Amino acid sequence: MFHSRRREALRDQLRTRGLDALLVTDLLNVRYLTGFTGSNAALLVHAGGDGGSVFCTDGRYETQSQRQLPDLRRVIERGSDRRLAGEAVETGIARLGFESHVVTIDVHEALAEIAGRDRMHPASRLVEQLRTVKDVDEIAALRAACAAADTALAGLLADGGLRPGRTEREVALDLESRMVQAGAAGPSFETIVAAGSNSAVPHHRPTDAELCSGDLVKMDFGALVDGYHSDMTRTVVLGEPAGWQRELYALVAAAQAAGRAALRPGADVRDVDTAARAVIADAGYGEEFLHGLGHGVGLAIHEAPTLSQRGAGTLEAGMAVTVEPGVYLVDRGGVRIEDTLVVGDGDPEILTLTTKDLVAA
Amino acid sequence: MFHSRRREALRDQLRTRGLDALLVTDLLNVRYLTGFTGSNAALLVHAGGDGGSVFCTDGRYETQSQRQLPDLRRVIERGSDRRLAGEAVETGIARLGFESHVVTIDVHEALAEIAGRDRMHPASRLVEQLRTVKDVDEIAALRAACAAADTALAGLLADGGLRPGRTEREVALDLESRMVQAGAAGPSFETIVAAGSNSAVPHHRPTDAELCSGDLVKMDFGALVDGYHSDMTRTVVLGEPAGWQRELYALVAAAQAAGRAALRPGADVRDVDTAARAVIADAGYGEEFLHGLGHGVGLAIHEAPTLSQRGAGTLEAGMAVTVEPGVYLVDRGGVRIEDTLVVGDGDPEILTLTTKDLVAA
Repeated sequence: MFHSRRREALRDQLRTRGLDALLVTDLLNVRYLTGFTGSNAALLVHAGGDGGSVFCTDGRYETQSQRQLPDLRRVIERGSDRRLAGEAVETGIARLGFESHVVTIDVHEALAEIAGRDRMHPASRLVEQLRTVKDVDEIAALRAACAAADTALAGLLADGGLRPGRTEREVALDLESRMVQAGAAGPSFETIVAAGSNSAVPHHRPTDAELCSGDLVKMDFGALVDGYHSDMTRTVVLGEPAGWQRELYALVAAAQAAGRAALRPGADVRDVDTAARAVIADAGYGEEFLHGLGHGVGLAIHEAPTLSQRGAGTLEAGMAVTVEPGVYLVDRGGVRIEDTLVVGDGDPEILTLTTKDLVAA
Repeated sequence: MFHSRRREALRDQLRTRGLDALLVTDLLNVRYLTGFTGSNAALLVHAGGDGGSVFCTDGRYETQSQRQLPDLRRVIERGSDRRLAGEAVETGIARLGFESHVVTIDVHEALAEIAGRDRMHPASRLVEQLRTVKDVDEIAALRAACAAADTALAGLLADGGLRPGRTEREVALDLESRMVQAGAAGPSFETIVAAGSNSAVPHHRPTDAELCSGDLVKMDFGALVDGYHSDMTRTVVLGEPAGWQRELYALVAAAQAAGRAALRPGADVRDVDTAARAVIADAGYGEEFLHGLGHGVGLAIHEAPTLSQRGAGTLEAGMAVTVEPGVYLVDRGGVRIEDTLVVGDGDPEILTLTTKDLVAA
């Protein structure tokens, strides 16, 4: 039901653009519009209604696609995109949109040989735009993915899993294993565990470096549930925090709170970034906040909207985004605090529920 | 040194095609040609020599790229592909090749605005073609990746990790954790553990289904080391194998041996597939071998060449490939046996060294 509603929303976009159909070849977009989870498929969404829509996958997924898409016409053939270009010709589609941000020059050449160059019209990121606003089903999956990450971190801390002598790599693996125990299909991206001076590297990869007493330990990780990605960063101190660590932490926490408070429908994404960035810049650390404030999250770990000075557009209720400011002091250490949230009409809903108070592990 | 040699080999290809330079935008291809491991980069390889070559990445990777590419001119800018298209214009490159199997319609539009449509010439899979034949450095990485997988499976079996009551998911996680302990950066793809009738599903995802005495347990997994992927499948029986399981296993093992024996320089990839397939078809199970025989493996888990009836071309010494026949009996169980190997002048070198005798775990 969700899927047919999503296709209906896409049809509105097609009619606005004067397209008779859209050839969807991005697999995540196909999944969003149909629920199909296999590794090869394409979908032709007809602007006139699903009576004219067709789904194509190969023989490996015949049974699975029958179960997952009982309501759509299906054809089975390995070259899904080419087959559906042929279907478009046969069913008299005059203006065929294609995903020009996905289709390569070589694939376009092959499709144009079948459908004719004049029939094909670039249509960029239509489904991605729909995907920015999550429906109830998607928010439930995101909530479950965030809960798996919360559960993993709670268990790690409760079991003394953060202690001097353990390596970054061991902690990362421990978190990932706990997320799977908590119901995740796996991590939603490569887990970051960065201790001591490594915490000053924004996207540090876990090494065999051992955690030491007094270290800042930055953990950026998430879980994958039903195809949806959670994303959370917490930074803790091993033992009693030093004064500079407390100050740095309080600064980043204040910036993160300011970023969250700016998440309102209608807010320009650049202004949300600025709200958090100003707190850090005012404290003199503007140069040490090296990245954007956040990003959309859903079927992809990074998706629209982008909350940064390079982003564009305004927020809407139902968008799922991260807010993740950080300050990185080279050779000393860094702090990043990140939540996954859903923009609401009032306050945003925080999906990652682990405390943001400074934890001394 | 390896990297400059690879660029030199690419230059031969450019000169053959009358191109003055190639704009490399596929990240794995950039890594192959330079050793750069970051998440954003492009490379302009000049046909006249590396004096005219330029690498571009963004500010996050300034230090890292300086360390990884001391021998190439570097520029730092976020839109790497666009910046290098501009460099091509400024340095008077008349015929600029681009990776038409990677560049999308939208990106091509942006590049053509900078460089002019007439300057740009599609050049498909030149680097991928070079990548099929591995050099000593790459084979060492593949060997290490295969060793990590061997070590993980040996440990799993020795510690009684395959026993009734454990779930597919627990076994998958255990294998992955052991690969990391053995030095892998992580699994090289989503680990498959499929027990009982699930083993009849070629690409089954691990579930909470428990292993039972008498089950066939199919494990398809690999490790990632220095960017290189290993790929191995072993199928074992939990307890004493039944007669039909022994027969099925012996059949697949014979097909796998026939496939390995056909791996010779000059062999047509379809003939290699046929060599293994004929063994299975002669036994009356041709319809139950549902996929191709194997694929190239390296910086990507699936790369050229494709060993199947849909593949094309001939083998060369130094190609790294998998040989992985399987027979899948719906509702009963399936057997797949897979090695990663390197084609040699004589017998191929097997990199995955775990026994292929039927193991009763």
